Amino acid sequence: MVETMKWENGKLILLDQTKLPVSVEWISCDTYQRVGKAIQKLEVRGAPAIGAAAAFAMVLAWRKIVEKYETKRDAANTSNMQLQTYAAMLYGSHDHAAKKLQQQLLKKFLQARNDLDASRPTAVNLSWATKLMYDAACKMSEAGLDLPQTDAELEKLAVKVYEQDIAKNRKMGEYGAEVVPEEAVILTHCNAGALATCGWGTALGVIRSAHEQGKVKMVYSDETRPLLQGSRLTAWELLEDNIPVTTITDNMAAWSMKTKGINIVITGADRIAANGDTANKIGTYGVALAAKAHGIPFYIAAPASTFDFSLKNGTQIPIEERNANEVRSFQGKVSAPKNVNVFNPAFDVTPAKLIAGIITEYGVLRPPFSKSIKELKTKVLREELFTWKA
Amino acid sequence: MVETMKWENGKLILLDQTKLPVSVEWISCDTYQRVGKAIQKLEVRGAPAIGAAAAFAMVLAWRKIVEKYETKRDAANTSNMQLQTYAAMLYGSHDHAAKKLQQQLLKKFLQARNDLDASRPTAVNLSWATKLMYDAACKMSEAGLDLPQTDAELEKLAVKVYEQDIAKNRKMGEYGAEVVPEEAVILTHCNAGALATCGWGTALGVIRSAHEQGKVKMVYSDETRPLLQGSRLTAWELLEDNIPVTTITDNMAAWSMKTKGINIVITGADRIAANGDTANKIGTYGVALAAKAHGIPFYIAAPASTFDFSLKNGTQIPIEERNANEVRSFQGKVSAPKNVNVFNPAFDVTPAKLIAGIITEYGVLRPPFSKSIKELKTKVLREELFTWKA
Repeated sequence: MVETMKWENGKLILLDQTKLPVSVEWISCDTYQRVGKAIQKLEVRGAPAIGAAAAFAMVLAWRKIVEKYETKRDAANTSNMQLQTYAAMLYGSHDHAAKKLQQQLLKKFLQARNDLDASRPTAVNLSWATKLMYDAACKMSEAGLDLPQTDAELEKLAVKVYEQDIAKNRKMGEYGAEVVPEEAVILTHCNAGALATCGWGTALGVIRSAHEQGKVKMVYSDETRPLLQGSRLTAWELLEDNIPVTTITDNMAAWSMKTKGINIVITGADRIAANGDTANKIGTYGVALAAKAHGIPFYIAAPASTFDFSLKNGTQIPIEERNANEVRSFQGKVSAPKNVNVFNPAFDVTPAKLIAGIITEYGVLRPPFSKSIKELKTKVLREELFTWKA
Repeated sequence: MVETMKWENGKLILLDQTKLPVSVEWISCDTYQRVGKAIQKLEVRGAPAIGAAAAFAMVLAWRKIVEKYETKRDAANTSNMQLQTYAAMLYGSHDHAAKKLQQQLLKKFLQARNDLDASRPTAVNLSWATKLMYDAACKMSEAGLDLPQTDAELEKLAVKVYEQDIAKNRKMGEYGAEVVPEEAVILTHCNAGALATCGWGTALGVIRSAHEQGKVKMVYSDETRPLLQGSRLTAWELLEDNIPVTTITDNMAAWSMKTKGINIVITGADRIAANGDTANKIGTYGVALAAKAHGIPFYIAAPASTFDFSLKNGTQIPIEERNANEVRSFQGKVSAPKNVNVFNPAFDVTPAKLIAGIITEYGVLRPPFSKSIKELKTKVLREELFTWKA
């Protein structure tokens, strides 16, 4: 089973995705700064994976802050044991000294949150997770939890972020596997896999679940230029899990549909509007057009958190344009004149009319999407909010 | 003006296309073996360019053969001047000694032809050109041409192969420019350019002609994985000629059609069946599907020699599959697990129904293609055959 990260003995162990598929290397992080650097350098990537890594980073940050406070007191000639006890007892109380200590620690915790947020400013799950952890610490302080309790609760919360992501993906996989035909020849684009999440994956989660049911004959995986997440990551993780996979360049997708018996397309999503228009990695739109031309059903697999209910349709989704050198080269190898003009959109928008269904952890949404997405919204709002409670 | 090769002072000067776009280097060939090596190493590529290079290589071969004969005689203690005169006079005559000399030289010439053919066995234009030159030499010998005359005629024939290719492309350009709209935003795939021909190009020839008429606003050039002829060659040659060009990865084509006002697609062709089904570089089919979905006319530009009148339709066109490592890597950088399965077709077939017109040196063919291609065939057969005549 492919793992993206492990929380072991108070350290966050991250799979270095920049080294794949050439080598499998793990990064041991014992500071939040190291996790921030990993997010920045794309050693860990994918919105859900970044969110969980950031939650664990906040646990690391909290521990370092408390440890430093104790070390300082220690240097001031009180025994460490006494101080820990003192701080621990003090933190949970409501007197003036306790308030001051709480404020000191939370102020530093806020700094850690801001630092982490800056590591990839546009990643929504990142700031969502750091806010969750920070807000929880504030509430714990108000609720009178002492230091050991706060520490334990923060850790539990981070683990919950991590585990709930996998649970959601498993659920998505169950629902999704039902739409996968027997003897499935599946085409997927980019990496919506275990590596982009805490485990199991979204589009690849559906493929994993279908594979468990013996349904998967072959997965065609677009390499996904410019950053090649398909050939570097999707191919690697499917091979790791012994799921049959064939790598193709992006421009082979249509011909593969014509000649290789592809009978379903499943991709992930970055943002879905209220009418079902779906932004995903550049190239998805072309794949959806080709699927339509061949009568192949095109599915999106994405958790409810991917829906932006505030957007009426796809024209409102902003499309990030990235650095031209990504197109002019690959890992430093020049592939185009250095002064050539480049268009490098990171995403495109697939119109709802090309989509057969959207697989979520609440079930498979079907057209008309305006209606089914409205129903999803109601379900999501009914669910308990993911915040810490005393 | 982009040049692929130059015939200068009895040497063939080839642009080293393997070095593009990083550096512009020229290879000076004074033996046919060096030209053969250039063909083999893809330093020169594209069917028409290979054909012309092979024709010049045969001139080089002939000169070396004659030179060697003279040197041998020289060593046998006759003055060089006398011998040249002797051989020259002898060669043109009909006596026994002359016949023997003719046979000796032509036998070596046949060897050179076979050597060149072996440098890229599947390239039709290559063996076409070497056969043309060899057959001409045989006829010249029969017709009683002496050595200087034969030398001059062979050179003239090679230059004709070269010049006629450019003339055909110019003609194609003229016809093609008529279908290009004002303020054209053109998408092209792979390199059907000056670099694949002796000059001007086929698809890019049409674009050049349209640009001369002030019609071209922008050319979007697919990078064309796996070998990147689009970003390495097309982008380079359009930049050289100051034609506005934007490089995109292949998976950006559909989104560019949607958002960038592309109003015509023009590509080359490798083989066209009698019903208009067209084999071209892998990815062309997907581009044609996307163009259809956006109501953008999709044109093929190809000389009459690209038509295979013997094939009823596209299903009869054999599709070459190439080495998996082309897909598993990018300019030598590993981009996929080394053991991953790969599908690497070099071409795909675009069905005639997706094609708005086929631009040839005889005019623009329109649907129904079965009819217009039949008419083309009649015209081609009526044309004088491209062979040497005394």
